[in-house]
Amino acid sequence: MGKVICAGLGPGDPELMSVKSDRVIREARHLAFFRKKGRAGQARNIVKDMLREDVIEYPMEYPVTTELHFGSEEYRALMVDFYAEWAATLEALAQDHDVVVLCEGDPFFYGSFMHLHTRLQGKVAVEVLPAIPGMVGCWNALDTPFTWGDDVMTVLMGTLPEEDLAQHMARADALVIMKTGRNLPRVKRALATAGRLNDAWLVEKGSMPDQRVARLAETDDADCPYFAIVLVHGQGRRPEAEE
Amino acid sequence: MGKVICAGLGPGDPELMSVKSDRVIREARHLAFFRKKGRAGQARNIVKDMLREDVIEYPMEYPVTTELHFGSEEYRALMVDFYAEWAATLEALAQDHDVVVLCEGDPFFYGSFMHLHTRLQGKVAVEVLPAIPGMVGCWNALDTPFTWGDDVMTVLMGTLPEEDLAQHMARADALVIMKTGRNLPRVKRALATAGRLNDAWLVEKGSMPDQRVARLAETDDADCPYFAIVLVHGQGRRPEAEE
Repeated sequence: MGKVICAGLGPGDPELMSVKSDRVIREARHLAFFRKKGRAGQARNIVKDMLREDVIEYPMEYPVTTELHFGSEEYRALMVDFYAEWAATLEALAQDHDVVVLCEGDPFFYGSFMHLHTRLQGKVAVEVLPAIPGMVGCWNALDTPFTWGDDVMTVLMGTLPEEDLAQHMARADALVIMKTGRNLPRVKRALATAGRLNDAWLVEKGSMPDQRVARLAETDDADCPYFAIVLVHGQGRRPEAEE
Repeated sequence: MGKVICAGLGPGDPELMSVKSDRVIREARHLAFFRKKGRAGQARNIVKDMLREDVIEYPMEYPVTTELHFGSEEYRALMVDFYAEWAATLEALAQDHDVVVLCEGDPFFYGSFMHLHTRLQGKVAVEVLPAIPGMVGCWNALDTPFTWGDDVMTVLMGTLPEEDLAQHMARADALVIMKTGRNLPRVKRALATAGRLNDAWLVEKGSMPDQRVARLAETDDADCPYFAIVLVHGQGRRPEAEE
């Protein structure tokens, strides 16, 4: 009897995954990962130089990505079937041996694995290996402490209504905005309303070789990278204030 | 000419540090770490089985911990001298060779290293290795996805005024409260005001062998562990709602 092991991969640099995830992935005989149809897959790409020669791969291809709105009934139904089928497949595989499922960032922090986790619980042994969240790789790319002293930090999704975004942005010290992509113009407007736009950074592919860092106010509105995170540093008790 | 390398250690389990921090610590000839006076030090304890035989250690002992209030002038002056002296020592050491500085959790996320980082910048090469924040190790201990869909997540310090805490707690979906310790009774009252107390967990030493998990509402008011984090899970779009 095996188990399903979800190995968090961290922000993208293979050297930033945990010692434990690194070992589990190098030893994996059965390896599953999410990917968009017709793509190699970002998770698979991170581990490409780590796999056994005799690894058996299970690409879990999303039935839809952005063709349908995530609020639509059609999207919902397709995704329910997709997760249910893969949960059943993983459960069956784990009857005989361990199966490793890759997950970018930390699996329990807005990760896709949660949809499988919920369906597998109580049916088969599941182990989740934590990892450095993508946002941590992004603020590390800015090479400045992100939160200090009593800073309040808030994480927001760019999919939220503009007014909600602006209100949360005004109340917190440090800000992380994920799921930006085509929501980025709205995120910019909300930051401007909250008076935080000039302190905001756009970080794309933090920790990866093609990492990009830019002041958000200086980016073009048509420049909406999908894997980017917006960051505003906290302004809590700082060492400069001690001098 | 060497550099100062701050190696993030993650939540406490040595297997959860990054492949890169693991290697840098095993190779370190000069190793500095913070600790309380008269203690072995939590950071040093995490790496105790990883060090070279000929490692040279530099324990950076805090001049005060809880004897003085952190807002007092005396505390401020002592800490300014402490950080200034150690920044000068590390800068001098890095003239000849690399010096590794240990930091629990992620160094840029409420980490003590920031006080040295600010003072070293522009004077000597500094490299910071990111790590899994302590809160990630804690929510992993609860074995349930922490944030989902469009959840708003807010990180709060238990040192904030009770009214501020309660207001932030009412507005966010997922909550992380750090620096609990003797602030825990106030944190509990604020959670109760915000209607979130019954959903709150207390996690002590997440990922470590003596890890402890308890429902916060069921803990005694005198039970205020220093290294504990309070967590409330988000309630965003969930897979159950898809069925």
